[in-house]
Amino acid sequence: MGSDFLFWIAPFGAVIALSFAYVFYKSTLKLDEGDDLMKEIAQAVRTGAMTYLKQQYKAIGIFFICAFIFIGFLSFVLKVQSLWTPFAFLTGGIFSGLAGFIGMNMATQASSRTTQAAKKSLDGALRVAFRSGAVMGLTVVGLGLLDISIWFLILKQVYHSNFHIITTTMLSFGMGASSQALFARVGGGIFTKAADVGADLVGKVEANIPEDDPRNPAVIADNVGDNVGDVAGMGADLYESYCGAVLSTAALGAAGAASASLSPKATLNMVMLPMILAGVGILASVAGIYAVKTKEGANQKELMGALNKGINLSSILMAIFSLFVIKILLNNSGIGYFGIWGAMVVGLMSGIMIGKITEYYTSFAFKPTKFIAEQSKTGPATVILAGLGESMISTGFIVLTVSVGIVFSFLFASGFDVKNISMGLYGIAVAAVGMLSTLGITLATDAYGPIADNAGGNAQMSGQNEEVRERTDSLDALGNTTAATGKGFAIGSAALTALALLAAFIEEVKIALETMADKAGGILSYGGELLTKARIENMDIVQILSLFDAHLLNFRVLVGIFIGAMMPFLFSGFVIKAVGRAAGKMVEEVRRQFREIKGIMEGTAKPDYAECVNISTKAAQIEMIVPSMIAILTPIFIGLVLGVAGVLGLLAGALGSGFTLAIMMANAGGAWDNAKKYVESGELGGKGSQSHKATVIGDTVGDPLKDTAGPALNILVKLMSMVSIVTAGLIVAYSIF
Amino acid sequence: MGSDFLFWIAPFGAVIALSFAYVFYKSTLKLDEGDDLMKEIAQAVRTGAMTYLKQQYKAIGIFFICAFIFIGFLSFVLKVQSLWTPFAFLTGGIFSGLAGFIGMNMATQASSRTTQAAKKSLDGALRVAFRSGAVMGLTVVGLGLLDISIWFLILKQVYHSNFHIITTTMLSFGMGASSQALFARVGGGIFTKAADVGADLVGKVEANIPEDDPRNPAVIADNVGDNVGDVAGMGADLYESYCGAVLSTAALGAAGAASASLSPKATLNMVMLPMILAGVGILASVAGIYAVKTKEGANQKELMGALNKGINLSSILMAIFSLFVIKILLNNSGIGYFGIWGAMVVGLMSGIMIGKITEYYTSFAFKPTKFIAEQSKTGPATVILAGLGESMISTGFIVLTVSVGIVFSFLFASGFDVKNISMGLYGIAVAAVGMLSTLGITLATDAYGPIADNAGGNAQMSGQNEEVRERTDSLDALGNTTAATGKGFAIGSAALTALALLAAFIEEVKIALETMADKAGGILSYGGELLTKARIENMDIVQILSLFDAHLLNFRVLVGIFIGAMMPFLFSGFVIKAVGRAAGKMVEEVRRQFREIKGIMEGTAKPDYAECVNISTKAAQIEMIVPSMIAILTPIFIGLVLGVAGVLGLLAGALGSGFTLAIMMANAGGAWDNAKKYVESGELGGKGSQSHKATVIGDTVGDPLKDTAGPALNILVKLMSMVSIVTAGLIVAYSIF
Repeated sequence: MGSDFLFWIAPFGAVIALSFAYVFYKSTLKLDEGDDLMKEIAQAVRTGAMTYLKQQYKAIGIFFICAFIFIGFLSFVLKVQSLWTPFAFLTGGIFSGLAGFIGMNMATQASSRTTQAAKKSLDGALRVAFRSGAVMGLTVVGLGLLDISIWFLILKQVYHSNFHIITTTMLSFGMGASSQALFARVGGGIFTKAADVGADLVGKVEANIPEDDPRNPAVIADNVGDNVGDVAGMGADLYESYCGAVLSTAALGAAGAASASLSPKATLNMVMLPMILAGVGILASVAGIYAVKTKEGANQKELMGALNKGINLSSILMAIFSLFVIKILLNNSGIGYFGIWGAMVVGLMSGIMIGKITEYYTSFAFKPTKFIAEQSKTGPATVILAGLGESMISTGFIVLTVSVGIVFSFLFASGFDVKNISMGLYGIAVAAVGMLSTLGITLATDAYGPIADNAGGNAQMSGQNEEVRERTDSLDALGNTTAATGKGFAIGSAALTALALLAAFIEEVKIALETMADKAGGILSYGGELLTKARIENMDIVQILSLFDAHLLNFRVLVGIFIGAMMPFLFSGFVIKAVGRAAGKMVEEVRRQFREIKGIMEGTAKPDYAECVNISTKAAQIEMIVPSMIAILTPIFIGLVLGVAGVLGLLAGALGSGFTLAIMMANAGGAWDNAKKYVESGELGGKGSQSHKATVIGDTVGDPLKDTAGPALNILVKLMSMVSIVTAGLIVAYSIF
Repeated sequence: MGSDFLFWIAPFGAVIALSFAYVFYKSTLKLDEGDDLMKEIAQAVRTGAMTYLKQQYKAIGIFFICAFIFIGFLSFVLKVQSLWTPFAFLTGGIFSGLAGFIGMNMATQASSRTTQAAKKSLDGALRVAFRSGAVMGLTVVGLGLLDISIWFLILKQVYHSNFHIITTTMLSFGMGASSQALFARVGGGIFTKAADVGADLVGKVEANIPEDDPRNPAVIADNVGDNVGDVAGMGADLYESYCGAVLSTAALGAAGAASASLSPKATLNMVMLPMILAGVGILASVAGIYAVKTKEGANQKELMGALNKGINLSSILMAIFSLFVIKILLNNSGIGYFGIWGAMVVGLMSGIMIGKITEYYTSFAFKPTKFIAEQSKTGPATVILAGLGESMISTGFIVLTVSVGIVFSFLFASGFDVKNISMGLYGIAVAAVGMLSTLGITLATDAYGPIADNAGGNAQMSGQNEEVRERTDSLDALGNTTAATGKGFAIGSAALTALALLAAFIEEVKIALETMADKAGGILSYGGELLTKARIENMDIVQILSLFDAHLLNFRVLVGIFIGAMMPFLFSGFVIKAVGRAAGKMVEEVRRQFREIKGIMEGTAKPDYAECVNISTKAAQIEMIVPSMIAILTPIFIGLVLGVAGVLGLLAGALGSGFTLAIMMANAGGAWDNAKKYVESGELGGKGSQSHKATVIGDTVGDPLKDTAGPALNILVKLMSMVSIVTAGLIVAYSIF
């Protein structure tokens, strides 16, 4: 079998990731959880978070049952989808949920232990928080790659060398993961921001008590929110990104090999390549995780340096080992291995570049955020305007980076032949895999943020001394920067993956046409043309596009682009309004408790934390329905009315505007947050000054942008593509035009 | 010649428009200008505005000379453009500037006269303000249609029946108008918002003096700003929209007739049709203008009713007369006249529908704006979030209206044949002409706004009694609603026109290929294919698109879409930052004058108004350069690197996201403004309350969105298309790919 053994790197990597996650999990649990008060607070947050997740999984469960029935109807009754699709869809959703659950479980266990470790040393605390974050990172990549490997082995037994069917069927598992991710991001995002905004508006502004004060009834809900939004939500989000990138690359590998008439052996290798690269990336990530350590008294820059050292090591290992793997896989296949490797490196480097740009635009060490902070001298309006302006400008550099990445990954992979679309698109997809290959460690640095944040909350609420709180604050501040960088990765990889999904949609359309021709006895009359099954099988991507008039002056494509470009705005509008409504309910509840429960402010009575958690939970469940349904139903509706061309326009439009809007929201929110922190560090009058008040307003505006609407946009765009892929058969068979 | 005589409706309409404009102008000048103080104030505003315009025209003049040389180089040296292009470009710019100048001259003459008329009656004041606004409306349509008619007569003498060349050459005059419009909108917008924000921040907030108080040094600059931004800027903007719609329709008419192999006679009629419709629209507008009158003591609703009566009358007349005109023109041509008329009515109705949706989302008579105002109970952050949320949701309905309009105008014009792309696109362009056909009156209601605003300022500064100020306030409040509606028209028509320009770009590409084949001796080797001139001439739009691989999976198209979708954000970011910087300078100057000129606050010394005007002028000139240059150079750069496919992606992406972003900005700004007015009307604590302060912050954030960045986005999208059209020859001959 020659290079076949390389496939086992994928499941091996998955098992390694899960094993290390288990080891880190167990070793963290063995650590001291601190005094009784610390334990009690951690327990309250844990209980709240678990209650929320259970409630959320129940709600999502209902959706999954409905979607399972709908897809089952497509597969078994209309017969416009593979019979495996409903089941692949389900496992994608379940594994994604599981990754979020495990990561969150670890995070809620880790916060008090990080605080306890911070009593002794900064290095110890960093290690606890970071290793706990690594549990999340490794669980996500481990479960993702395990699920992919198992499905690949099963489907290969059934379909042998029909890689086209194997890879497109596997994509439907991406739809399960995307749906789960959207609900988790939107629901978790609404929960956390309702609690955060509610706690701040009444606590800080009206009652004049500090952040994380135990007298604030919404304080536990706020800490729960960090876990369900920033940990569980993000876990599901990146699980989806990771699987989406690998699966769409595999699908394009099958298509590319077919269009280049490669041997089954070479085709198999192109299909396995992204899975194997993911496996190599896991090994590189584990090595990087072990390299992260710091010394006592380290400043922000040194802490960041410690994390960067780990990430850089992983990237370098990835670049080196992947060269060998790709060379062996593509040896004698007729595909230039160096070009494919080049595409992967382009992805890896673009990810790092996006991280740097994001840091520049959101850290107060640089001009843009300082400028935003300085605008506070003339009040909140100028802070908001400066934040909008800077974040809009920042989109230029990030979009340009990704665009250059697309051009070069296409050119490298296609051997600089612009007509070689199949290989070029494969290259773009490989770049996405490259960007996400070291997700094990980048997600660890990201998930570390909310753990450090909660550790700080725990220290504050349990009344730890100044030194401990300084250490947790310093870890928390670092978390803000890594969060921004992590968002950059999520956004950049989403853009590349979405492009690959666009191509995968066309592949699925082709299969739908073949199926229809089969049913019609071998000859299909479609769009005024008579197509034999053999002719359809021999059509390349461009011919399929031309069959559906998918050019830029087709009014269906143009209307699709209009509606697609509008979707991210509409979706964000609903999400932002939802946060506002939920926060309003929280404000009322906190005010009610201050009014009705005597002795809260004096510390003689305990507020009813659970009720606040309850309010956020309910609001999140109800409010996530409308935006999620819009995302899922629009592609089906447009598909049935405007056909394949309309759907392509819709997806391209949504990708274009959604990508930019997501960057803008993430960077505006991050910069406003850090502008506030800049003032709090003593600049421009410091805490309590007019400047501080102005930047707090900026931060409040930015919260739902950066933590609810913004990150959900990546998923929105990909989910719309996934829905189109799964319903392609329906669209081809039943569209009006 | 049969139906040829109908052509004369176009120049006749133009002359009628200019004659009525002259009559209204003269009759307004005859009115009493009021007392000496009123005259003095009006004179100061007039001088400031004229100084600004002169300065602006100088700066733009330099650009026009450079662009003239560049286009001349394309035409005479590289020979990739018609020899007429540089001159057409120039006249477009000059006429557009002239329209803005005349409109603004009238507006600055009219404000004190409106105030004087308000001393007697509301009806009289409305009539003065509205008729003066009509001068602007009629000048814009009159000059636009006159310029078009003259060029058409000249080029027809030269090129006879080669309508393809005639119409595409005329489009370059659209580029002149677009450039002028962009500079006028961006420069004027920066001027007005720098003055407005500067005056408010120091005057209202720091010195605690009311709006339009003569002690505020920036007060004259603020009033000048209304004229240069909202009058001259808007005039140039809509001049460009109007000409762009007519010219692109003519170009698509020539292309459509060619692809349907129509006779020269029928082709001529399809080319003349948009010009004649424009002429009919002018006559309908004049009739509508005469129908606008109101009675003393009329409330907001009745005032709005008076304006609506005029607009509705014009629309009905337009719908009726255009049916006859279109029927005669297309008689026996083989084109269904009823379908073309249907497309025009779809455009007319979509425009009205957009106006209604805009009113719903920005007037405080409805839920969304009330909701935004109510969010002021929890401070400015929730006001901002509610405004962002509502305006994002509002994009959904407007984009849907335009999308439905596109689908139906395409289907009607193509006779429900989706493959009949040329006629369908012609239908979309005709819909844009329909939407703008009654611009004479809709622009009158729009230009009326700043006149009423300035009349209010004049009344306040000259210390008129309560009754007079109530009357001018009531006219001013109405102006806010008509401004929002006017923006809706500008945005909707821009979207349709931009689609038509996309198709016109392909026509220009075809001409470029023909020219290249000519030069190469009849056979051109292009993109690996050998093309004879005859073959190129026979290619339809789809074949040209296919020659350049302009499908949705070409990486150049996709990268184009990415960069295009980002452009409106980048551009807006620069504009918003520019306003912030300019406002900062104004704040410093106002503070300096309060500090250094003794007796300002006591009213014993006069502030140095001229210096504030000077600061806004300089800032506007400098700050408009970068965003304008980005807009102009990007299509050329993308064209040279990514070729025709990249440019198409760029334009489609910019159109998709720019359209939505423009709606969002216009509606957010309008709603915040009216939420403030709602509180000022006594709700939620009224003036001076915490709610008022929160909504003032919302209004300040919205100002540069709705009056600077937002309206400029329409022009940005169209200018990018125009630049692509003019440089198509360069792109086809010299692009890398």
